[in-house]
Order: sequence, then structure tokens, then C-alpha cells
Amino acid sequence: MGDIKRTEISTLGEFCLIEKLTKDFEIKNPSTIKGVGDDAAVLDYNGFKTVVSTDLLMEGIHFDLSYFPLRHLGFKSVIVNLSDIYSMNAIPKQITVSLGLSNRFSVEALEEIYFGIKTACEAYGVDLVGGDTTSSHSGLTISITAIGQGEENKLAYRSGAKPGDIICVTGDLGASYLGLQLLERERQLQKSDPNIKIDLEDQKYLIGRFLKPEARKDIIELFQKSNLVPTSMIDISDGLASELFHISKQSKVGILIEEDKIPIHPDAQQMALKFQVDPTTAALSGGEDYELLFTVDPKDLEIVRYLPDVNIIGEVKELQDGINLLSTGKKLHKLKAQGWKHF
Amino acid sequence: MGDIKRTEISTLGEFCLIEKLTKDFEIKNPSTIKGVGDDAAVLDYNGFKTVVSTDLLMEGIHFDLSYFPLRHLGFKSVIVNLSDIYSMNAIPKQITVSLGLSNRFSVEALEEIYFGIKTACEAYGVDLVGGDTTSSHSGLTISITAIGQGEENKLAYRSGAKPGDIICVTGDLGASYLGLQLLERERQLQKSDPNIKIDLEDQKYLIGRFLKPEARKDIIELFQKSNLVPTSMIDISDGLASELFHISKQSKVGILIEEDKIPIHPDAQQMALKFQVDPTTAALSGGEDYELLFTVDPKDLEIVRYLPDVNIIGEVKELQDGINLLSTGKKLHKLKAQGWKHF
Repeated sequence: MGDIKRTEISTLGEFCLIEKLTKDFEIKNPSTIKGVGDDAAVLDYNGFKTVVSTDLLMEGIHFDLSYFPLRHLGFKSVIVNLSDIYSMNAIPKQITVSLGLSNRFSVEALEEIYFGIKTACEAYGVDLVGGDTTSSHSGLTISITAIGQGEENKLAYRSGAKPGDIICVTGDLGASYLGLQLLERERQLQKSDPNIKIDLEDQKYLIGRFLKPEARKDIIELFQKSNLVPTSMIDISDGLASELFHISKQSKVGILIEEDKIPIHPDAQQMALKFQVDPTTAALSGGEDYELLFTVDPKDLEIVRYLPDVNIIGEVKELQDGINLLSTGKKLHKLKAQGWKHF
Repeated sequence: MGDIKRTEISTLGEFCLIEKLTKDFEIKNPSTIKGVGDDAAVLDYNGFKTVVSTDLLMEGIHFDLSYFPLRHLGFKSVIVNLSDIYSMNAIPKQITVSLGLSNRFSVEALEEIYFGIKTACEAYGVDLVGGDTTSSHSGLTISITAIGQGEENKLAYRSGAKPGDIICVTGDLGASYLGLQLLERERQLQKSDPNIKIDLEDQKYLIGRFLKPEARKDIIELFQKSNLVPTSMIDISDGLASELFHISKQSKVGILIEEDKIPIHPDAQQMALKFQVDPTTAALSGGEDYELLFTVDPKDLEIVRYLPDVNIIGEVKELQDGINLLSTGKKLHKLKAQGWKHF
């Protein structure tokens, strides 16, 4: 991690540590009544629905610190949770952050993580309101809970898609997965020759998509401006295919998507070919895109058609039709949910 | 863990696993609009303040599975979070549970943990509304977030104590710490002679206080019935001394407590002497009691005096008076915050 200064965490008490790490966080939301510093945070959501999401990220499973800079890790840990709140068509307002750390981490390392957390909080207008910092026998564990608010009639569940609805996805898919493959490959190279100089400068897009993804706050704001309420919505963390299965299962509907409509960035196209991976497979199964997959009523077609960075990729079908991909060669393929498996 | 049946977690998918583990949880609170099964839970706290607390528990740091039965661990993990909500004078309504597990845990082991979680949810009227289950390279990690509601004018912070207020504590202190010492000693004995038969039957109270603590829901209900609002409150997780320091710091007040008023169970008294520990020290620094420490305005003296299981242990003083213990021998001792240190 290349720390110049190294302060052992044990030299600070736990409370002192939390104070040190959180003192620069300012409270931005009127719904935050009481933040860090008591047994619990106090929030006020009078008249709104409260939306809560939580994630547990473990070193060696969800991230590898040999190529994941700590400040990016802090940032991304927040983003993945905010993305879950946005995907309900709600606005995240607060987060809690719990960290488990082995003694290989210094206070400076922790400050790097919190720098990333703070950057995300500022970019998304979210308040840090609590958490827990504890030691761990092995590696780094990050647990984040995000809390947001949504209007009762505008919340978008996974269960609201109806046959005939239009299926949309934001941004582009597969780039994050290919960024990860790049970093993994470079790590292997560096293992075999520690003096090797690696220039990833021309792969900034793919690596950035993996190391520093953004949550689609902008899309939720566009929905509000255009008075559009998706019939269902989910964020793409495990891969497009896996998320389509969730929509299908919970809405009890079939799915048809068209291969040539799936948005893939040119850099991802090229890198997939280099890695001898089908670009569509990378988009379907890669995951960690943190784009939004949503369905809208056909009456809203003219609205979504002109929304920037929104792609229409298919149509909701009857349950018995199953989950299918119409290939570029106009053949129908049954989709498999090859989401990202932890176990 | 003595599993008879052992199903590898890898034989179930992640979503299937969560479904299997959470299908028996019923939703009990009208404020729970949407529980497990979407990107985020949806809650409705119209007219109430939302209170949120989170904890991260790591194997080898917070618990040792060689003597901690998994169902008790599940139960206690919930309790420690609920206790944080009660200590705000609020009522917990929902929890999210995230687990990180190495492959040494079977599905049956996981079900044991969830059995304990469910028992706690039922006993305290709390809904499980979400979470995350992931693999881990080492041991078990449990992260729980509890969400509750409180009335605006009745929330009790750490910062509300005023000079002249009466200091109270519920239940008795130090027993949990001594229960832990007992279990640790027996583990050492068993290490030296694996065939040794250990009978902890007559130490049920101490061990129960450590393995299966309760949160003081009953006290919060008593407050409501008696129209009593504490001026400040905190739960005792790190030890009475440490919590008094929190009240002192955040309320900017001094503290005087009387040694002979600190409630200690007879079993704890005896065991402390066996371990050659001062019983008062065990009560001050032991921790994990999950009792409530609170202060009340002197006008409420007659109410607290007759509340069952509430002990008056001292008085809030001016900040410059410091934090002191009046010993049984009528000597004044400066208190030290010997809370439980993780690092």
C-alpha cells in the first residue's frame, strides 16, 4: 500500500479512531437528526417510505488489495449500496459503515478507505451516520448499510413487470468484468516478473468501470423530471442474465432480449475479443456494472426512447415463454442465469 | 459443531440459500412494507423518528465457536443490536443480517445461526427485512443492522444528562464477563485433557448471561407506562465505567457513583472471588451486560425508586468534578474507562 507514515491502529482507542475518521463528514440531509456518536443514528422520514439496503464485502472474495487501491475500495463499497437504493427508485440519504481490520492495516490505510467513503458521500449527497470498527484476524471486511427515502407510489420493485412492458438498461455492460480480467492478468504477469512495467493507460475505461463505478443517480433524477415510474427495476451487480432471472421470477413473467440491442462499449468489445470471450457473454454474465435494468409500460415508450444513456433491449413476455435471447443471427436461445457465484 | 447432516453451502445457490434460511420469518410490523427479496427493504415510519444501529461481529474477536453454540450466537448477535435501539428509548422494528462464512460451515450450521436469529426476532417482535450472505476465506463474520422507531420528544441520547440527575442501571453487572472467564477456563482445561468432564450446571446464571443475554425491552415499556423519559441513556456493552465516560463526555458532566449501589448478582460475587477478581472491577469493566445505564431528572426520583429491576447508583455532577467512585470504605476514587478494547 506504499504508506510513508504508519500509525498502528492499536495506538488509538476505538472511539478516538472513529472520531478521527469521521470528523470531516458533514451532515447534508435534513432527515439526518443524529449521526455518528450515539448508540444509534436518528432519522426522520415523515411522509416518505424508508428504504434500507446492506452489503458485506470481504477481502479475497469481493476485492483483492493487490490491485484495488484503498480509496477506490472505500468509494466502491458505498456505491454498490447506493445503487441498491436507486434501483428502488428511491434516494439514498444515509449510510452506516462497519470495518473489520487485521493489524496489517495502519491508520493511514484506514484513512485512505475513509477518503473514498467521504468522496462517495459527497458526490451522492449521503450522510455517514454510524458504524462499527473492530479488529479481525484476517484481512479486511467492509459492511455498509444504506438508507434512503422514496415516494410510496413511485417505488420500483422487482415484482412489477407485466407482459408487454419494455425492457431497458442504462449505460453499457461487461466493461467492469473485462477491467477485472485485465487487472488479474497483469497481476499474474507481475508475479512471474516483479520488474515488469505494465501500462494500463489505454485501458482506463475498462479499469475505471471496475475500480470506480458510479451509481445511476442521474437516471433516477431523469425519471423524476420526466414523470416516469418504471414498472420494475433492479441494479446490475451479478450480471444482466442473473438480474433478468430475478425480474422474471418475482414478476412471474417471461423475458425476451435482443443480442444486438445490448449496449457494449467499443473498448469492451475489443478486449473481449483479445481475451477470447464472447462480448455478449461478458455483458450477460460479467456483473458489477451497477447500471439499472428496468421495465416500463408501453405507454411510456416515447419517454424512454429519448432518455440519454437508456437502451431498449427487449420486451416482457408471458411466464410460459421463458427467458430468451434473440441472437444477432436471429436465433432464439434460452438464457441461463450465470450470475456471479460466491460459493 | 456435531452436525449429523452436512450439506455443503456450495450445493445451494446464494438466492436459494437466503430463501431457505428466511422462509420461516413472518412479518410482524405494519411499518414493514417490503422485506427480504428486493434490492432494499421498504419501511414506513410516518410520524416517527427512524433509529438505526449496526454491529460487526468477527469470529475469534467477538466470539469463539469452541464454546459458543451457533444458535446462541445468532440470538446474541441480534440482541446486541436491539439493545442499541432500546438505549435510544426507541422500539426496534426491523433488522438486516449479513453473514460471511468459510466453507467449514455447512448449511445445517447456518440454519442453527438463523434459528437463533429467528428466536430473537420473535421474542422482540422484530422483522428480518434483508441482508447478504457471502463466502469468506476465514471463519464467520456477522453484520447486523437494526432499525427502530421512537417518538421525537422521547428519544434518549448520551448527551442529555444534567448535573443533579440521578444515575440508574438495570439488572446486575459483571456476570457476563465472569461467565466468559468460566468458559475460557474450561476450554483451557479441556485442551490439557480432552476427556475431562466439565459440569457447568451450577453456573448456569453466569454462563447464560454471556451466551444468551436479553435486551431490556421490558424497561423501555415500563418507561412508557410510567411516562418517564430518561435525560440520557446508553446500553452497557463495554462495561459500566466505559459507558459512564461516554455520558460524561457527550453530556459534558461529571459523574459520582457509589460502589455499594452497583448491582452484582450473588453468583457473580462468588465467582469473582474464586477468580481473585474484585467484583466491583468485574462490574465496572466486564462488559457485555446489555443492561441500560440512564439518568433521570430528580423530579422523577419517586418513579424510578419503585421501578422493578432498576438501581439508583449515583448522581450526575458538574464537569469539573470528574468521574468518581465512592468506595464501600467511603473513599473517593477517580474512575478509569477500562472498556473492552478491540485493538
